[in-house]
Amino acid sequence: MSGRLSVTYRVRSDAAGIEARARGIAVEQSVEMPVEAIDDPSVLSDIVGVVEAIEPAGEGVFSVRIGLALDTVGADAGQLMNMLFGNTSLQDDVVLHDVDVPPVFAGPRQGLAALRSRLGVSGRAFTGSALKPQGLPVERLAQLAERFARGGLDFIKDDHGLANQHYSPAAERIPAVAKAVERAVRVTGHPTRYIPSLSGDLDAMRAQMRLARDCGLDCAMLAPMIAGFATLQTLAGEFPAFVLFAHPALGGAARISPDLLIGKLFPAFGAGGAIFPTYGGRFGYSQDTCRRLAENARGYGALPIPAGGMTLARTAEILDFYGPDTMLLIGGNLLAARERITEEAERFARAVANHSY
Amino acid sequence: MSGRLSVTYRVRSDAAGIEARARGIAVEQSVEMPVEAIDDPSVLSDIVGVVEAIEPAGEGVFSVRIGLALDTVGADAGQLMNMLFGNTSLQDDVVLHDVDVPPVFAGPRQGLAALRSRLGVSGRAFTGSALKPQGLPVERLAQLAERFARGGLDFIKDDHGLANQHYSPAAERIPAVAKAVERAVRVTGHPTRYIPSLSGDLDAMRAQMRLARDCGLDCAMLAPMIAGFATLQTLAGEFPAFVLFAHPALGGAARISPDLLIGKLFPAFGAGGAIFPTYGGRFGYSQDTCRRLAENARGYGALPIPAGGMTLARTAEILDFYGPDTMLLIGGNLLAARERITEEAERFARAVANHSY
Repeated sequence: MSGRLSVTYRVRSDAAGIEARARGIAVEQSVEMPVEAIDDPSVLSDIVGVVEAIEPAGEGVFSVRIGLALDTVGADAGQLMNMLFGNTSLQDDVVLHDVDVPPVFAGPRQGLAALRSRLGVSGRAFTGSALKPQGLPVERLAQLAERFARGGLDFIKDDHGLANQHYSPAAERIPAVAKAVERAVRVTGHPTRYIPSLSGDLDAMRAQMRLARDCGLDCAMLAPMIAGFATLQTLAGEFPAFVLFAHPALGGAARISPDLLIGKLFPAFGAGGAIFPTYGGRFGYSQDTCRRLAENARGYGALPIPAGGMTLARTAEILDFYGPDTMLLIGGNLLAARERITEEAERFARAVANHSY
Repeated sequence: MSGRLSVTYRVRSDAAGIEARARGIAVEQSVEMPVEAIDDPSVLSDIVGVVEAIEPAGEGVFSVRIGLALDTVGADAGQLMNMLFGNTSLQDDVVLHDVDVPPVFAGPRQGLAALRSRLGVSGRAFTGSALKPQGLPVERLAQLAERFARGGLDFIKDDHGLANQHYSPAAERIPAVAKAVERAVRVTGHPTRYIPSLSGDLDAMRAQMRLARDCGLDCAMLAPMIAGFATLQTLAGEFPAFVLFAHPALGGAARISPDLLIGKLFPAFGAGGAIFPTYGGRFGYSQDTCRRLAENARGYGALPIPAGGMTLARTAEILDFYGPDTMLLIGGNLLAARERITEEAERFARAVANHSY
């Protein structure tokens, strides 16, 4: 008898139909064929998914817990996603709600603790901003980075739209921005980190990370839903000194609970920072979702990073909500200050430094 | 002035709010910052997304067409997805509806035409089945493949749950099944193809494809939503003689129109066959969606493959609906025949061969 991992789905169903529907999910996410056509006893006992519990979750929705065989997953992040929700994602009565992630997906090598020690920041939240808009040439992005860093921010990340476009190719952007931030660091004395955004296939991302390493960087960002889950897992393993930040792009989280996908699975696969759209911004997550997401990420030693329409004016409220183990990422709102970007960045850094929890 | 690609979203909104919402999407999917904070004239004119049209689409939904700068996308499949729907996927009032895919994403090297010529099949639909359940050892899967092939099916694919598990590791499964199918082909004279399922990261998939090529195979399957879009694109480029079949796992198509995602984008990135859950099966796509999906795939020279709860009894209905340029993929329903699998496979092959369109 092999081990099982427990997966919870939220299923829209009437009471009469839920048992059959739950068995249907257990079969779909394991052997994907009529169980009566299986004659191998070990497949029947060890591989076919098992309905472990069905509980009402209110308003015509049931919480269904299914035990999937660990043997069907192995240690590949992509295959875990396949077994958790591959075909069932195509059925619109089901949300993937929660998972006891198998311990083989051990979380980031470098996360919250590494960031605290590398930046010498304790007892307060981290600050960050983003290089935008895309379309600017490399020199303009580098100037912008320097101005942000002069304001004493902890992190400056590429906008997730920055890929390998001809107007700011990665091979030129990464060294130029790294140097610009270095110049600012020599002035401020604060070890601001630049987080380049990775793009392309696994090989392209590897090349970008090697370049980043050669430039003295130790952080990078990618979007696991676009890049592939195994891509995140492989890069985390191959660059163990890097903190990898997961961007939620294409997360379309309506069908996978965001606190699970972004807060738990991305860190389990190796992300040391998890960027997510905070409540009250341009996106629709509830406070409960955001709180659980942040707790899940910290549970893996990863840094939760609320973003998406954050403003300077909300600093105190957001810090009260998330506490010090977080990063405030303010992009557009700082950029709107135009020629006063460094001063606004300073004000932002000061507000976070002076906040009492 | 750089070129634009037109993207259509379906947006839930009242009439008073739709113009502002459309502009919001245009900004989110391009510069992702307040436009008034942008001082670079070429970014304003060439990079910021443009609302091209807004039309009512019934029941509180609007069709919004937005022009995104081709320069922001380049030629990377992942970056195209990022610009089409990266952040906006996180907002639950929007569905990505359609795209004029830039011609740089040229579609599969090998698709429908290659399959017709390699298998010597014209004027009729293709037939296929799947190796299941996972958990069986390699020898059992190979026997099953041989029995299916003896029935004269065109394709035998790995179940998409077959990855690299210890009970049937890819390195043993691929050669064993390839040999078993070869044995059947020598008997039947029909050039049945085996389609192994790829798993792991890009390097693991490359190794599996090299092994497949060494075994004389010319087809393989992967799930782009799990593997990453650039992974599909890279493999299609590196193995130009292979037909790549896209599996819809994790497609969670509620937020991206399946006729776009599966029928258009997967083929555009290099898939020569597009597997999708047909209407009337275990999944919920409508006939209209299935028809458009199949037409989109054929538009790229790719083979549309309805699946998901297909039965022998539905053969005529499905062929009437999809016509001859398709593959019927029947898995569980054939496996349920147990010791009569070869006979049922024969019956299936005959039914498809004898159908008049």
